[in-house]
Amino acid sequence: MTPDNSVQLIPVPGIPLIKPGDDLAEIITQQLAAANLTLQDGDVVALAQKIVSKSEGRLVNLRQVVASERAHQIAPLADKNPRHVQVILDESREVIWVSPGIFVVETHHGFVCANAGVDRSNIEQPGAEEGDIWLALLPKDPNQSAATLKTRFKELTGANIAVLINDTHGRPFRMGGVGVALGTAGLVALVDERGERDMFGYTLQNTVVATGDELAGAASLLMGQAAEATPVVLIRGMRYRQPKQPDTGAADLVRPPNKDVFRYPANRKEF
Amino acid sequence: MTPDNSVQLIPVPGIPLIKPGDDLAEIITQQLAAANLTLQDGDVVALAQKIVSKSEGRLVNLRQVVASERAHQIAPLADKNPRHVQVILDESREVIWVSPGIFVVETHHGFVCANAGVDRSNIEQPGAEEGDIWLALLPKDPNQSAATLKTRFKELTGANIAVLINDTHGRPFRMGGVGVALGTAGLVALVDERGERDMFGYTLQNTVVATGDELAGAASLLMGQAAEATPVVLIRGMRYRQPKQPDTGAADLVRPPNKDVFRYPANRKEF
Repeated sequence: MTPDNSVQLIPVPGIPLIKPGDDLAEIITQQLAAANLTLQDGDVVALAQKIVSKSEGRLVNLRQVVASERAHQIAPLADKNPRHVQVILDESREVIWVSPGIFVVETHHGFVCANAGVDRSNIEQPGAEEGDIWLALLPKDPNQSAATLKTRFKELTGANIAVLINDTHGRPFRMGGVGVALGTAGLVALVDERGERDMFGYTLQNTVVATGDELAGAASLLMGQAAEATPVVLIRGMRYRQPKQPDTGAADLVRPPNKDVFRYPANRKEF
Repeated sequence: MTPDNSVQLIPVPGIPLIKPGDDLAEIITQQLAAANLTLQDGDVVALAQKIVSKSEGRLVNLRQVVASERAHQIAPLADKNPRHVQVILDESREVIWVSPGIFVVETHHGFVCANAGVDRSNIEQPGAEEGDIWLALLPKDPNQSAATLKTRFKELTGANIAVLINDTHGRPFRMGGVGVALGTAGLVALVDERGERDMFGYTLQNTVVATGDELAGAASLLMGQAAEATPVVLIRGMRYRQPKQPDTGAADLVRPPNKDVFRYPANRKEF
């Protein structure tokens, strides 16, 4: 028996390899139907960033990249191919640090992550020649990608759902990566409960919850990275908040520099 | 219809206010029974840190605390009562930084978090006098707390389950708090998939996943902080890995100083 107020995390089976131009919402709707599932109002569809990037053609053939002098300087420090470094630099607005095997940047979106989210695994590109190495970049505007998918799901199924595009990021202080929301549409990703009262009537002081990232972490539990990869997870039964319009999506989860005391110690006003 | 391989997040209803000495596993087992639920092998029971702390009597009456000179120095910077600061200092091995309203420390467990996890909300202590302010401290050894609960659940129900004690922490780079695992028993909290091969036969390079924190985030989605608080969530259907013995629990998720390039820039070897 599953109580009415439970939340289900449902892996969507049988998602094929995604190619540029694929209609992801249509493919997912078909695979849900094959599993006797129909989207319902309030569902959240979580998609691994990689399949969104591939469907949008955010792919680079390493053979066609010309490495700059800076990329050549960084490459041996990062223990990476200079062309690969160039692709990461092109996706970044700031290099945070480099050490062997670790290349952390701030992307143009403001994500602080390894390798600007650029990844070489699981790429199969039509017309690829032997020896080609293809890299998948993050979506250019993941919130827009999520919004476009949300609209397409509505067209195909009539359901008002939320869409979440997730990735795995490492973090300071804690070991291991966790799911994070790169883009969302149709849900409040950052929930501010300050000023609400708790069970005893105290006013809560510090309760701002990154619901978008918690949903991404939940979906990530079922996605896996290796052979059994499941790039789409349906989250059903979650009582999330509806966003105001325009929907700012997961951009709310990016910490602005003036609130970042780690990278900018000048923000630590005292002590 | 819910597919067999889905994961359910089930809020456990009707958990009463917890007092020191309460048998949490017994209370939870009773409330599950009242909801027609029985623990099964492989279930994960996620408990909010506060109820574990209260059941263990990890409570301090602010009236009985004597503030040191250091606490008096920090108090105006943190905009907190000096006695409250003293309690946080007693729970910490290092002050990371202080600014108005923000007091970040490293706890004796190694958690980098605000206020050493010390919290004043939702405390109702027997024998409390008017004007008393009670603070709840983190469990002294959250992995041991989880292991003890796991054993007690086994005694009461016969089920081999995993136990997770979770809290909400802020993070650098990202806005809002997310659920994190303070303690676990019976599951691998940090899953190392390096060396496994992906769908195309590439060897995965950087796939170490903080499953314990992702489970904590998932449970946190249902816990809420305010009036409707639900301090216990049953996670059913999750295929987690069994830990080696001795079970190191969520201690694996704490980043050791020699792998921390943020707090210790000397660890950034290059660039």
